Amino acid sequence: MIPLTPSSPAWVAAALADLPTLLVDHAHCERKAAQTALRFMAQHSDWDALIMPLSRLAREELVHFERVLRELEHRGLPFRALPAANYAAGLMTALRPASTPRVGAGVVRSWQGERTVDEMLVCALIEARSHERFVRLAQATSDLRLRDLYQDLLAAEERHGSLYLELAEQAAGSDVSARLGELAAHEAQVLARPGQPVRMHAGG
Amino acid sequence: MIPLTPSSPAWVAAALADLPTLLVDHAHCERKAAQTALRFMAQHSDWDALIMPLSRLAREELVHFERVLRELEHRGLPFRALPAANYAAGLMTALRPASTPRVGAGVVRSWQGERTVDEMLVCALIEARSHERFVRLAQATSDLRLRDLYQDLLAAEERHGSLYLELAEQAAGSDVSARLGELAAHEAQVLARPGQPVRMHAGG
Repeated sequence: MIPLTPSSPAWVAAALADLPTLLVDHAHCERKAAQTALRFMAQHSDWDALIMPLSRLAREELVHFERVLRELEHRGLPFRALPAANYAAGLMTALRPASTPRVGAGVVRSWQGERTVDEMLVCALIEARSHERFVRLAQATSDLRLRDLYQDLLAAEERHGSLYLELAEQAAGSDVSARLGELAAHEAQVLARPGQPVRMHAGG
Repeated sequence: MIPLTPSSPAWVAAALADLPTLLVDHAHCERKAAQTALRFMAQHSDWDALIMPLSRLAREELVHFERVLRELEHRGLPFRALPAANYAAGLMTALRPASTPRVGAGVVRSWQGERTVDEMLVCALIEARSHERFVRLAQATSDLRLRDLYQDLLAAEERHGSLYLELAEQAAGSDVSARLGELAAHEAQVLARPGQPVRMHAGG
């Protein structure tokens, strides 16, 4: 179970009031999630539990990316670049530095360290936040196509969150719930920064 | 039609003599091809002809990545990091700098320039080289599983090469065959650099 502060009704209202931006940002989120998975795969060839699952996760994110692109097309909305709200960058400021890898059974792996634990936990939080917001948007919208979109995609976000949490536990070699709680508190602060634009991951 | 110098019998023999390295490198090639597609998608949100096709290409590369991982597993060979032979980096040294974008019908796009043309042509050459080597390996090996692997994957490489060539033509707004010929000659020189390790894309 990933602990998150609930999104405010104000965020839900602002998001649904600017669908062209919300959907374009959503598409970028799916694309970036695939990119992050590929970055981890490039870093951790020696992590059996990560390689194949993250390749499948990346493919699923790209299927979702294409689904959101088709939704934009259906609505006559252009896909375009969007300035980043620096949500992920804000989360990354809490990462602990790379530590000396934990030595277990004589083997030291690239992924056994506090930085990797934190990276996996941050990804678990991002996926969990997507899930929480898809649920809220699906509940709040009167647009049936939009409701179906979020309902169809939210189960995957939850699964991805669980996968990243398992990877964090494996990297830590121990329970990670205390650290997850710290990072969840940081995540709430990052979202609540003032003056945020309409984004899937901005605004408290 | 993408012009390539043929791979030497010496390269084919050396590659088949070191299957653990060839297969691990092949897996990395598929992973990196997906990563490159995602990089272009991040750069060119405004390029309709690129966004959806490269997302599908990336998914297909990841399916192939997973197929090669399963082949390694079947053979009891570990997946691992490999030092780069700097093939792509060698090709990139020939890229022309970013130029002032071509102005057409009053619209200037991120992707209308000589650098993008060259990037797309380099990717077309990489895909074409994979295709050429898969054909050679499939012909030369007496290992039926290995032959099937390359035969199953080679059609996709050819399709991906054609896609990148079409994108290059669109970025150029004109015929690109002269520039493709120049870059193909450069590609042959990069492959033929002395002292190359066993790699899908190293050795003449």
